[in-house]
Amino acid sequence: MADRAQIGVTGLAVMGRNLARNLARHGHAVAVHNRSSGRTRSLVEQFGHEGTFLPAETPEQFVASLERPRRVVIMVKAGAPTDAVIEEFAPLLEPGDMIVDAGNAHFADTRRREAALRERGLHFVGTGVSGGEEGALNGPSIMPGGSRESYEALGPLLEDISAKVDGTPCCTHVGPDGAGHFVKMVHNGIEYSDMQLIAEAYDLLRHAGGMEPAQIAEVFRKWNTGRLESYLIEITAEVLAHTDPATGRPFVDMVVDQAEQKGTGRWTVQIALDLGVPVSGIAEAVFARSLSGHAALRAAARDLPGPSPRRADSVDALVEDVERALYASKIVAYAQGFNQIQAGSAEYDWNIDPGAMATIWRGGCIIRAAFLDRIRAAYDADRNLPTLLVDDHFRDAVATAQDSWRRVVTLAAQSGIPVPGFSTALAYYDGLRARRLPAALVQGQRDFFGAHTYRRVDRDGSFHTLWAGDRSEVNG
Amino acid sequence: MADRAQIGVTGLAVMGRNLARNLARHGHAVAVHNRSSGRTRSLVEQFGHEGTFLPAETPEQFVASLERPRRVVIMVKAGAPTDAVIEEFAPLLEPGDMIVDAGNAHFADTRRREAALRERGLHFVGTGVSGGEEGALNGPSIMPGGSRESYEALGPLLEDISAKVDGTPCCTHVGPDGAGHFVKMVHNGIEYSDMQLIAEAYDLLRHAGGMEPAQIAEVFRKWNTGRLESYLIEITAEVLAHTDPATGRPFVDMVVDQAEQKGTGRWTVQIALDLGVPVSGIAEAVFARSLSGHAALRAAARDLPGPSPRRADSVDALVEDVERALYASKIVAYAQGFNQIQAGSAEYDWNIDPGAMATIWRGGCIIRAAFLDRIRAAYDADRNLPTLLVDDHFRDAVATAQDSWRRVVTLAAQSGIPVPGFSTALAYYDGLRARRLPAALVQGQRDFFGAHTYRRVDRDGSFHTLWAGDRSEVNG
Repeated sequence: MADRAQIGVTGLAVMGRNLARNLARHGHAVAVHNRSSGRTRSLVEQFGHEGTFLPAETPEQFVASLERPRRVVIMVKAGAPTDAVIEEFAPLLEPGDMIVDAGNAHFADTRRREAALRERGLHFVGTGVSGGEEGALNGPSIMPGGSRESYEALGPLLEDISAKVDGTPCCTHVGPDGAGHFVKMVHNGIEYSDMQLIAEAYDLLRHAGGMEPAQIAEVFRKWNTGRLESYLIEITAEVLAHTDPATGRPFVDMVVDQAEQKGTGRWTVQIALDLGVPVSGIAEAVFARSLSGHAALRAAARDLPGPSPRRADSVDALVEDVERALYASKIVAYAQGFNQIQAGSAEYDWNIDPGAMATIWRGGCIIRAAFLDRIRAAYDADRNLPTLLVDDHFRDAVATAQDSWRRVVTLAAQSGIPVPGFSTALAYYDGLRARRLPAALVQGQRDFFGAHTYRRVDRDGSFHTLWAGDRSEVNG
Repeated sequence: MADRAQIGVTGLAVMGRNLARNLARHGHAVAVHNRSSGRTRSLVEQFGHEGTFLPAETPEQFVASLERPRRVVIMVKAGAPTDAVIEEFAPLLEPGDMIVDAGNAHFADTRRREAALRERGLHFVGTGVSGGEEGALNGPSIMPGGSRESYEALGPLLEDISAKVDGTPCCTHVGPDGAGHFVKMVHNGIEYSDMQLIAEAYDLLRHAGGMEPAQIAEVFRKWNTGRLESYLIEITAEVLAHTDPATGRPFVDMVVDQAEQKGTGRWTVQIALDLGVPVSGIAEAVFARSLSGHAALRAAARDLPGPSPRRADSVDALVEDVERALYASKIVAYAQGFNQIQAGSAEYDWNIDPGAMATIWRGGCIIRAAFLDRIRAAYDADRNLPTLLVDDHFRDAVATAQDSWRRVVTLAAQSGIPVPGFSTALAYYDGLRARRLPAALVQGQRDFFGAHTYRRVDRDGSFHTLWAGDRSEVNG
């Protein structure tokens, strides 16, 4: 038994317990504490052989068992419970100690808490942890914010327990105060988008291709050996291949088609709106989940008329088209998400390196994918890339994919299959490259009804047309 | 000169001035006040002949000139300036008096202010006023929230100055506290959506139809004699028909194609996300404006490859298809907006009558349209209609329009013309009527990576599959 722990974890539900075990397995002595001590005892009883745990019954005992600077990881529910635990522990700590919030806090709360604790001489590190229970135990992707100084004391432990890809830890210092939770939020938003696009690909193969889930599972398995290789594609194949034990029918057909959500996708869109970043792929994914959950509305609308169902002429050609549409749409989804990270970084002066984010997402987290190496390379070549879509690799990929992409959106529109994710990605792509957008008309309308003024293409300044008068132009 | 005014207006920028003039023109004596008294004097000098104005130099003088219960309309910037003016006047008022905020406040602020002033015995009425400067002067659409009692004292004056359609005032009591500003916010969100759809229709006629702005103006003029008849269609024709005096070229081509926004569209989407209402049409409209404004990003992306431009086979057929696509998409946009009103009403216990909202939007406001009579009729027939799309009229309209709608989305995808509004409306329609959505797969993925559980179609309860184990199913 060590007499001092390098780090402590309070809040021993499954995520906290698994983080503590991961730390212990890596040779760190870990103080453990939970409001009700039953969880503390059962952790030590069940997993005490995995490493050195210092169980504590009280916050005082917990804090006393930590070496300095004390590293207190709290893993409790976001919101008021997190504030309560901070208030419980902060008075017991000394200048230079740090509190690490590894939950899914809103980055604005993290900014508030960091500022308040800094006033009290304490470090506060809000960190994203992705990978679920299994990741927490075996190596998550970790996105810590907070001061550079706190990262010096904490980073080595976190890098130690994080996932590794090619020997590189999936953990780096993201940036000051709320930067870590912000990036974790966008990660989750991208995850929503990725899952929605996969769901649409499945739906097309099922309904326009007439394929069964087991056959579609094979398609996803094959895709997982190519450029789409990723955890989400892998588990999609597993879910689609699964047969419901009770009925012998495809598992996916036995699940109620109402997707739930916990809120980080919604936050991502709300914050993107404040930042003025069009994250239409994430928004459509969040809306698709909401729509699916409106059971009464859907029941009322299910007999609305649609087109006659059609089948694709060739299943093989459809599979190829859908793969390309999925890849192109995925590039757009990530391009939008990375633009949000850049916008947040500029707004809050975080100086986030987007390539480093792609690097730490390559392992441990839900969106881990071969694809992220390409994103890293794109930002390594140009850290200030205005959008991933103009990177040579992605530009060429979309150029090759776009005929397929347009065919897939067309097929869906003609067949009555909803593909909000594919469609919005295509509209974004076409909007981005448009030489002229009809936004000029919108400005004209706004000037007409609200005298909101407009700018001219041929000279500087702000102008207003006297619409209700002689329609001459005045300075606005 | 009356010695007491029925109502007072403080904040005499153009909106406040025009509201005061509108009240005076309707025979009400109006106390007028502005922080800097120059505006007060110039109002009386220029427009004193229109009615009875009681100019006040100070808040005390202003309040003293009002009959009881005092009705104080404040027309200042949303946010801190509104709070400051409330704090300036509230101490001068007596129980039963009322403060009316006619600016574009966020409804959450209005709820807070209403609660705080209620504690102090004062009524606080947050009211939406739509129609811009011209509406404020000649008859706006007015959406007052606040207590029923306050409406009894205030409503007759507001109805008096509001627009009238078939003799019915475009003003009614929306509901308690923030209901009025909430409904005004959704009105603006719908306005964004409507404008985006019109812009897409124009873009298609221009680029897929090869038509010039003046020709498209004629198309809009014709549409304005049919079911699309509305203020926005009417002014679109005016803007498109306008020739830039300086260059002799179409005005719309001389305007920078970067649309601006003031925030209520963004609020609408943010609140819809909190309420779980998919308002994808409004979101796409907000994002389209943001995208248009990212000049550097667009410049970097303008050489991204697209398809070869194509022209529609027949311009006449295209015009007909676009009219139908626009009408169908517009139905979806309004359906989503009205669902948000219903959801807000349920969340905050406002008991809003959606048909009454359609009624007061028929005149005075930016989205005034013949179409709103149809919406009113739909809600008169069934106040709890789950979506406008299942009303017989709208159902039939979409049924007739949908082949055209699908052709237009197809043409846009094939031609590389961005139609995020048309596309998302179609995806929403197809998602709503889908018998099975791929949300079941999303639930399977969520259960796989996060043990989030799922429900089954064949029995009640919550379930989890042991994905990492023998894949048996357990209760979740």
